[in-house]
Amino acid sequence: MSLVLDQQAQDLLFRSARTANAFTDEPVTDEQVRAIYDLVKYAPTSLNMQPLRVVLVRSDQARTQLVERMADGNKGKTSTAPLTAILAADTDFHDDLHRTFPHAPGARDWFGDDAARTETARFNAALQVGYFILGVRAAGLAAGPMTGFDAEGINKDFFADGAHRVLAVVNIGKPGENAWFDRNPRLDYDEVVTTA
Amino acid sequence: MSLVLDQQAQDLLFRSARTANAFTDEPVTDEQVRAIYDLVKYAPTSLNMQPLRVVLVRSDQARTQLVERMADGNKGKTSTAPLTAILAADTDFHDDLHRTFPHAPGARDWFGDDAARTETARFNAALQVGYFILGVRAAGLAAGPMTGFDAEGINKDFFADGAHRVLAVVNIGKPGENAWFDRNPRLDYDEVVTTA
Repeated sequence: MSLVLDQQAQDLLFRSARTANAFTDEPVTDEQVRAIYDLVKYAPTSLNMQPLRVVLVRSDQARTQLVERMADGNKGKTSTAPLTAILAADTDFHDDLHRTFPHAPGARDWFGDDAARTETARFNAALQVGYFILGVRAAGLAAGPMTGFDAEGINKDFFADGAHRVLAVVNIGKPGENAWFDRNPRLDYDEVVTTA
Repeated sequence: MSLVLDQQAQDLLFRSARTANAFTDEPVTDEQVRAIYDLVKYAPTSLNMQPLRVVLVRSDQARTQLVERMADGNKGKTSTAPLTAILAADTDFHDDLHRTFPHAPGARDWFGDDAARTETARFNAALQVGYFILGVRAAGLAAGPMTGFDAEGINKDFFADGAHRVLAVVNIGKPGENAWFDRNPRLDYDEVVTTA
């Protein structure tokens, strides 16, 4: 065994964990989300830029608005999950770099190009989406991440500043009845990893 | 405590783990990389598309070529790390969907638009970069992920098919002397998480 991480943690985060498609009614509290964030915030991003932003969809109005923007196959589970989170990249992350990357006071100016900055924000927030999904599992909850939605519609409805880009919508809760589809095959090591 | 993940695993993956900037000479074996992959391959991607590809830079020639493409501040550590991995998105992931997402035989055809497919590949491979970094830590190793490099040059040198996009280059090994910079501040919960 080449891994140091204990077997129980391996199972919780990776091997037994599965994308959930149905949930129980048990609520997911803000305290649980805070514990998730306070864990995964330490995982790395380029220049410590931390562009991920999370909107917890708690009100009936926001829920209705969001479900409207989801692809048909995602509407049902998104309308009934105990908690749904919108995960987005803040393309204005560079305004915080003086605090998050303090030893390079000029760092903000490296991101004057809007297109390049947006791509950097999307990449680093995507890293953080990955961390967040594992953080949900670390809290003993199941995550149901989805990318089938009207992104422009969600950006418009939930981020009035025009500077955010939704990357994923994640249902969160305890898995309910028939929560799992069959696990799909993973690529073999030799299909993914090569040597130069 | 709202987390189920044990404290030791929390520390190993998130709290104590740090981006390393110097490494010992201890080699990183293919068996270790295989163990990392066999853990993180289970973490989710959209439609199970798994676009991440990893090139282990083992030969002197490849190392020299890669270092040449790195930003100046990343050249030194990349030339001396026991193992350096190039992490890229395969934009032709859709050619494998008949195996990786077998219950939707027509899934390949959903990705006819090159620009949209490339963006999907980049996002999902970025999720997997996040998983991979945590997998390196799960193996008791330190990761030094970098995004400062000439991406087009690396794509040309290492991916002759023109279908891959490098996302990150990661040094891997046991942390050496003066491996750590001071940890930079993380954003507060209330700056990142809001409620709608």
